[in-house]
Amino acid sequence: MKVSIERSALLKAMSRAQSVVERRNTIPILANVLIEAEGADISFRATDLDIEVVDKTAAMVEQAGSTTVAAGMLHDIVRKLPDGSTVQLNADAATGRMEIRAGRSHFSLATLPREDFPVMASSEYDTNFTAKASLLHRLFDKAKFAISTEETRYYLNGIYLHSATAPGGQMLRAVATDGHRLACIDTELPDGADAIPGVIVPRKTVTEVLKLLTDDDAQIDVSVSETKIRFATPDIILTSKVIDGSFPDYTRVIPQQNQKRMEVDAKEFAAAVNLVSTVSSERSRAVKLSIDEDRLILSVNAPDSGAADHELAVAYADEKLEIGFNAKYLLEIASQVDRENAVFLFNSSGDPTLMREGNDDSAIYVVMPMRV
Amino acid sequence: MKVSIERSALLKAMSRAQSVVERRNTIPILANVLIEAEGADISFRATDLDIEVVDKTAAMVEQAGSTTVAAGMLHDIVRKLPDGSTVQLNADAATGRMEIRAGRSHFSLATLPREDFPVMASSEYDTNFTAKASLLHRLFDKAKFAISTEETRYYLNGIYLHSATAPGGQMLRAVATDGHRLACIDTELPDGADAIPGVIVPRKTVTEVLKLLTDDDAQIDVSVSETKIRFATPDIILTSKVIDGSFPDYTRVIPQQNQKRMEVDAKEFAAAVNLVSTVSSERSRAVKLSIDEDRLILSVNAPDSGAADHELAVAYADEKLEIGFNAKYLLEIASQVDRENAVFLFNSSGDPTLMREGNDDSAIYVVMPMRV
Repeated sequence: MKVSIERSALLKAMSRAQSVVERRNTIPILANVLIEAEGADISFRATDLDIEVVDKTAAMVEQAGSTTVAAGMLHDIVRKLPDGSTVQLNADAATGRMEIRAGRSHFSLATLPREDFPVMASSEYDTNFTAKASLLHRLFDKAKFAISTEETRYYLNGIYLHSATAPGGQMLRAVATDGHRLACIDTELPDGADAIPGVIVPRKTVTEVLKLLTDDDAQIDVSVSETKIRFATPDIILTSKVIDGSFPDYTRVIPQQNQKRMEVDAKEFAAAVNLVSTVSSERSRAVKLSIDEDRLILSVNAPDSGAADHELAVAYADEKLEIGFNAKYLLEIASQVDRENAVFLFNSSGDPTLMREGNDDSAIYVVMPMRV
Repeated sequence: MKVSIERSALLKAMSRAQSVVERRNTIPILANVLIEAEGADISFRATDLDIEVVDKTAAMVEQAGSTTVAAGMLHDIVRKLPDGSTVQLNADAATGRMEIRAGRSHFSLATLPREDFPVMASSEYDTNFTAKASLLHRLFDKAKFAISTEETRYYLNGIYLHSATAPGGQMLRAVATDGHRLACIDTELPDGADAIPGVIVPRKTVTEVLKLLTDDDAQIDVSVSETKIRFATPDIILTSKVIDGSFPDYTRVIPQQNQKRMEVDAKEFAAAVNLVSTVSSERSRAVKLSIDEDRLILSVNAPDSGAADHELAVAYADEKLEIGFNAKYLLEIASQVDRENAVFLFNSSGDPTLMREGNDDSAIYVVMPMRV
């Protein structure tokens, strides 16, 4: 293999591929990236056996071929090379080394045989559809914070992507929950996604996919089967296994009859929660909301260290209510609101509370109360 | 105690005081800041028993008094309060609480009796002088990186500040070394500093003092005794114990007869060291310098992972030389050079090497070679 490529193009392709490589590997080949050069393209393939990313970019291929080298090291080298340099990659099967030349720098990296690199088996996909990057980004980005980190409840360690019936019609829906809070985000069902099987997309895949969805207007080809999900742009293909488990029936958790409606400026609300929670110890970060006519008092009482309260003007016309929440959960939920006021719908101090942005039902959040 | 103060003034004073507070304290009072209000001033005092900072600022004192509250918590609260607010601090001896009010926020913090707060005993200082902040900053900042972190060699865990005779006359000198490299920084001896006792200023004190020396033109009053050093501005007094030990005779380590002179662009040199060291494992980061007429080749050979080399144009007219160094030490030394080229003076591949900025002898660095 003998290839010339501009440093910034190489860096971009390498960055995306190497980010799926796990830092600590017991299997040496998994620390490597598979480089394949053919025609006018060079591709970089990296995997952790659950996710595979292939990133392709144009290059001057003098001699086709392939090899594998340490992904982190190659990435570091390219990162440190001066911008604007032309990089030559030259893998020599005889020496088992890949030579890198750029300006007055020269590197010789150890390689591992390409035959040892685990390429993910290709699959049949039941469902194929195309969606705008911005829509997919919203689905994953707004649901992500609620993904559980409890490994024993592995079926909650991802986002449940499926189609659902909403008042506005069939939706593509992303749901995540850790039992304490839930996020349920809808977008219009794209053409061809009608028969999408419900799949649980693992947390790491969500993180990696979000990195691909930076160009809002890009069209992303999504393919889904019972066991895998694939996201493709003209340059990049990300394939991931999905979590083998059943996502619980989340619809039971979403309150339908909460009548007590409080509307509040989301930024002010988040700042106030953040402020009063300063006095509480890390562990029991309970914030009490005392709501009366158009008035909300947020308070925290931590006997050892102190107490705090803050008053906010809100829109509220129902009977007086006192309810407690975990400060972290309230903050995370409030920070999802970006355009309008946050609307909270309460029932009683023991029941789950619903939060949404204005009257927009396409993103709803549920949070369990805490006794205070 | 009853005080009103503008939030930004409070934040500034609190930030400087609380930064000496150790995060993990076995003695509860050491997590607190002592607040004293009298006349038209409020002061904040914090200590870790080795360093004490007192920061004074103007405030509306309605009722003089004092108390102690958790430094970290008070700092966090003030940090989160909106800019521009007026903060009221109200300590009530009867309740044992300090109330904080700002806008629609209210806090009540637990206090500890001011009598329990360990105020550092005042001392007699043998030497008192005044120096420009920029000069002190340079002394400490350029020597800091060479301070040893080995706790068993406690007498190397700081910067040795003393007066020394140099070709240019009497100097105020800062020296730090960890046995592998040494920094020796001179500045003209300020009036009154002639009889300064040689003191070892601990690493943490160096860090804290550097934070005070942000205004280059400020005049800093420095007082030194055998056991303590004090830095004072009109607002802040930082007092620190010095390390009780003898700094070794460092002058023996500074080579006087190194004849082989290499001059190189410091930025290019640092970039090249950084680049070639990418292929080596963390532990043995040895970089080899092969120097021939006006040509330097930097190379690294890490049998497991690969090899790298980079060529640089330098000014060098002596006999051919090969010498190895720890990459980290070379990088740190090269990054001290900011105005001119780095000048290296070598003897042989087994002898300490000297580095300075151009022909400026007021900051010299010594680094031990490594076998490569």
